[in-house]
Amino acid sequence: MAICLFTDFGVGDLYVGQVEAVLDRLAPGVRVIHLLHEAPAFDIKAAAHLLAALATGLDGNHVILGVVDPGVGTDRGAVVVRADRHWYVGPDNGLFSVVAERAAARSVWRIAGAPAGAARSFHGRDVFAPIAAALARNDFPNAILTPVDGLGVRLGGDDLAEIIYIDHYGNAWTGLRADALPRDRRLVVAGRELPYAPVFGEAPPGTAFWYVNSSALVEVAVNQGSAAQALGIEIGMPVAWR
Amino acid sequence: MAICLFTDFGVGDLYVGQVEAVLDRLAPGVRVIHLLHEAPAFDIKAAAHLLAALATGLDGNHVILGVVDPGVGTDRGAVVVRADRHWYVGPDNGLFSVVAERAAARSVWRIAGAPAGAARSFHGRDVFAPIAAALARNDFPNAILTPVDGLGVRLGGDDLAEIIYIDHYGNAWTGLRADALPRDRRLVVAGRELPYAPVFGEAPPGTAFWYVNSSALVEVAVNQGSAAQALGIEIGMPVAWR
Amino acid sequence: MAICLFTDFGVGDLYVGQVEAVLDRLAPGVRVIHLLHEAPAFDIKAAAHLLAALATGLDGNHVILGVVDPGVGTDRGAVVVRADRHWYVGPDNGLFSVVAERAAARSVWRIAGAPAGAARSFHGRDVFAPIAAALARNDFPNAILTPVDGLGVRLGGDDLAEIIYIDHYGNAWTGLRADALPRDRRLVVAGRELPYAPVFGEAPPGTAFWYVNSSALVEVAVNQGSAAQALGIEIGMPVAWR
Repeated sequence: MAICLFTDFGVGDLYVGQVEAVLDRLAPGVRVIHLLHEAPAFDIKAAAHLLAALATGLDGNHVILGVVDPGVGTDRGAVVVRADRHWYVGPDNGLFSVVAERAAARSVWRIAGAPAGAARSFHGRDVFAPIAAALARNDFPNAILTPVDGLGVRLGGDDLAEIIYIDHYGNAWTGLRADALPRDRRLVVAGRELPYAPVFGEAPPGTAFWYVNSSALVEVAVNQGSAAQALGIEIGMPVAWR
Repeated sequence: MAICLFTDFGVGDLYVGQVEAVLDRLAPGVRVIHLLHEAPAFDIKAAAHLLAALATGLDGNHVILGVVDPGVGTDRGAVVVRADRHWYVGPDNGLFSVVAERAAARSVWRIAGAPAGAARSFHGRDVFAPIAAALARNDFPNAILTPVDGLGVRLGGDDLAEIIYIDHYGNAWTGLRADALPRDRRLVVAGRELPYAPVFGEAPPGTAFWYVNSSALVEVAVNQGSAAQALGIEIGMPVAWR
Repeated sequence: MAICLFTDFGVGDLYVGQVEAVLDRLAPGVRVIHLLHEAPAFDIKAAAHLLAALATGLDGNHVILGVVDPGVGTDRGAVVVRADRHWYVGPDNGLFSVVAERAAARSVWRIAGAPAGAARSFHGRDVFAPIAAALARNDFPNAILTPVDGLGVRLGGDDLAEIIYIDHYGNAWTGLRADALPRDRRLVVAGRELPYAPVFGEAPPGTAFWYVNSSALVEVAVNQGSAAQALGIEIGMPVAWR
């Protein structure tokens, strides 16, 4: 069991290392995997759909420490979730609700407060990391977890017809799962209708298209170019089928 | 004992991996923690105060490989420092002097030259990493270390009334330790007087304030916004109390 | 034996973590070293020379998972290469050809297709990572590898008189190996003739010069400044001697 981090801490900032130091101390020898540290900081809905796609794609069972938490330090709740194969630790602000509502089986525990001395602005390090470390050691922290009926904030498990992520190539991920989609439909985004292509190399260079990406989501791309730049796409922008 | 890296090598560049390859070879199985690779490159004073705050916050005892080293390849000295619980390896240019001067106990050793074949521009890889690996193995490299009275370059252990770091949210760290500060004072920065707020969620959105951050330093922030952008803050800018 | 990653996946994106999750599952306990995730995405020639310099500089023997792969999903081939001490796994698009053609000994195997369910756009995760993990376990995957005479795409092992990499300081790497160069020659780049300096600290601040970098390549730099900015240098730009 590895500990997988999914945060908006920023890949160049000094927050991730502090979390890793806590994990190293409390779960020595456990691998730490950095899924993403550039999650959309102020769009929990987008982050929740992105996390659901990534977590579903992970083989094995893992502890996922998820922090997109603009309300840190306020009275928003904090939770541990078991959804299918993985554990999730983080804020009860909707971030885990998409993956939880899609899961065949789920359990939710409320985290009781914070340890003495915890920084009010860095629960990722002081509250969530110690719990993630305990779970990775198969040491369920009963004393601070209370079973509850479900998550406090629920966003629903349906697909999200919006842009949820833009990678550094300029490819734009949507929150639409692609499994059952007819490939002859056109995707509408930013006022443009885009055809399907099975893979980058089969679209003409410079042309925008949609395809099924490596996390089984509908993605907008331009072969050898940036779809985000070419089409003026941003996170949160709606998409539709025609 | 982990090896913690604190450098200005850049998180996207090809330098960190080369250091990690040396550490893997010479200290296999030892965890490498990336505290920061975007330390202010040409402001050793700011970097020294930032390192002191981070190192003080680390539980356990670690080897800290610190490289902010614009003088690499010149005749600036190089040192190993033991300050309280941690080891430090890197240039004798002031980078370790803040943490050393604040420590209850400290010892300093001068590093004698560089191994044959060492690159003059990459002591982090060729000089400091092998020593950090040896220390992490509890194998003190006597042959190349000479005990000395203290550091050659000393910046003093007092607080620094300047901006020392800006994170990707736009929050601006100062070099002021917050432990004993009265919360009713106002912080002056960039021509503005800022009130105190205990945490982001208790300041009105869009409003600038100061608070005590997760490393116990005074930090300037804007709830749901970028303080650096809103106030025009840069590293090195002075701050004051009113 | 560590697994070293050399990709254009982007250091802030969500691709590297997915590869690491596969490696953790199939080669638990094996160190993963991130050599570079910002390799020039659409300049395989530059990436091939950069990889050759980095790989040659690594002590020990490693598995290098190399992905700069604009043709992923098309019918470009995929290979395992043994060149001197290291294994290489990735596309047969020239990326490994510089290091292979310079090697004293080399063997090449063609990778037969992709596992069932592999994403056509993410061979790094679904095709190459499982093979890299097997090699790191000393478990040669005979069933899917066919020995072949050599690489399909060969770029030649000669030096490349071009800019191949620009780091975040603005230092510009060339594809010229520096071992046998007379230090009294001047390097011509972007219409400027630059003198040699042995190290940053011996060039006047703000002045452009060339020197032999820590990977034994000719590099263009400005002491305490950005050569890329000062001279308008970009990857792919030609250089010459005078």
